[in-house]
Amino acid sequence: MLMTENKHTGYYNYTVEARDTDSSDRATYVALCDYIIRVAGDDADIRGFGVRKLNNAHWSWVLSRMCVEFTRRPRQGEHLIVRNWLSDVNRIMATRNMEIRDSENRLLTAAVTQWAMIDLDKRCAVDVTQSFDYSTVIEPDPCPIEKPRRIRTATSDTSFTRKVCYSDLDFNGHVGSVKYLQWMLDMVPVEFITERGLARLDINYHHEAVIGQQLLIGYQQSEDSSTFEITSADDNRNVCKAVLQWK
Amino acid sequence: MLMTENKHTGYYNYTVEARDTDSSDRATYVALCDYIIRVAGDDADIRGFGVRKLNNAHWSWVLSRMCVEFTRRPRQGEHLIVRNWLSDVNRIMATRNMEIRDSENRLLTAAVTQWAMIDLDKRCAVDVTQSFDYSTVIEPDPCPIEKPRRIRTATSDTSFTRKVCYSDLDFNGHVGSVKYLQWMLDMVPVEFITERGLARLDINYHHEAVIGQQLLIGYQQSEDSSTFEITSADDNRNVCKAVLQWK
Repeated sequence: MLMTENKHTGYYNYTVEARDTDSSDRATYVALCDYIIRVAGDDADIRGFGVRKLNNAHWSWVLSRMCVEFTRRPRQGEHLIVRNWLSDVNRIMATRNMEIRDSENRLLTAAVTQWAMIDLDKRCAVDVTQSFDYSTVIEPDPCPIEKPRRIRTATSDTSFTRKVCYSDLDFNGHVGSVKYLQWMLDMVPVEFITERGLARLDINYHHEAVIGQQLLIGYQQSEDSSTFEITSADDNRNVCKAVLQWK
Repeated sequence: MLMTENKHTGYYNYTVEARDTDSSDRATYVALCDYIIRVAGDDADIRGFGVRKLNNAHWSWVLSRMCVEFTRRPRQGEHLIVRNWLSDVNRIMATRNMEIRDSENRLLTAAVTQWAMIDLDKRCAVDVTQSFDYSTVIEPDPCPIEKPRRIRTATSDTSFTRKVCYSDLDFNGHVGSVKYLQWMLDMVPVEFITERGLARLDINYHHEAVIGQQLLIGYQQSEDSSTFEITSADDNRNVCKAVLQWK
């Protein structure tokens, strides 16, 4: 829900629901990232450059890279304030930033998301700057954390196959952006989540995955980080890569 | 959110969110069942016999059986009214009913849920009638649909193993009640969901499942129904059984 607006920055409030939490009574990383992506979409819609308007031209935003840093996971019932602003647009990418703060204005989570634009008919990239006059909505504040890193292909210690099923899909009919993160977190030792906690995650999205597709999830664990590479088992195409850094 | 109250019946309103929907833009069966269970919990808390109060005595409600019938899946943004009432309590079980209606008062979904009570320390059943004076909250309206059926053990055509992982758990640290339904729906041909639709589901819960536990999911498909039996692979104990009837 849009709470207030200061120039080109949207402030949203959110109360952590029971369905967002794990048995520690705190919001999961998946719920926090899901909320970040939903706010990005809603805010773009409100300002007139969202998917709803783009779809008239058969264009759409595609999440290309995301990084998120976590200080504290909020508890069920906590009231959060989410600040969202568009800091930069070029032909390739729009950069949208978020900060999630608690009711005492302490920073809980900060994120940078980078979005490309595609033509849904031709399945090719569109010049982002042609879709809207972004000079009217840019807030030239710096990103709150270092921008998303480009993740290089790594060797994997372990790999799992997974067939995409109905519940993996979002309203677009593709595997939802946070679903990959959920799969990754299910592969790391659970104590990493419950005892250490995530310091930062970087995720690069390459190709969408659809129902029935067989995916290969490569996983490498070091002392402080978990690296993942998800490829399509059929044609070896990159689907998604991520690095999770633990506290 | 509690909207209004008529004697012992709670009326809640809910707007279908994007995260509740699939690519048909309609709420998933899992989202509808999840909402039914959440309303049951919230309504019990409001009336003074919920988990929050019971936990003081180290008691808790446990969902034992549920049945749900579906007329229409609502679209994203639709405003729903959920009617919730407790129709019957005996030593073994409390029966809580729900009807979900759209803004024109058309019935979308009706459910009957039956809850047992356990002592969390001794892990044994508690006499439900001892926990609260239910005569003050019973609404003696009949259940909106035929009560949940007892599902008998059946032979399975197919079976899959599945290891319980972090994202399967709810805030209690057990596999969430609707998670089993999600697994089942992921096993049926997707056209059953997108083209035929669920008429009714019956689900019996037997034992809770915890992280790391290896489960065996038996599945049998007939023309009009899908039958599932989930057992623990280690000790063969029943975890959950369900019958999904298709339109």
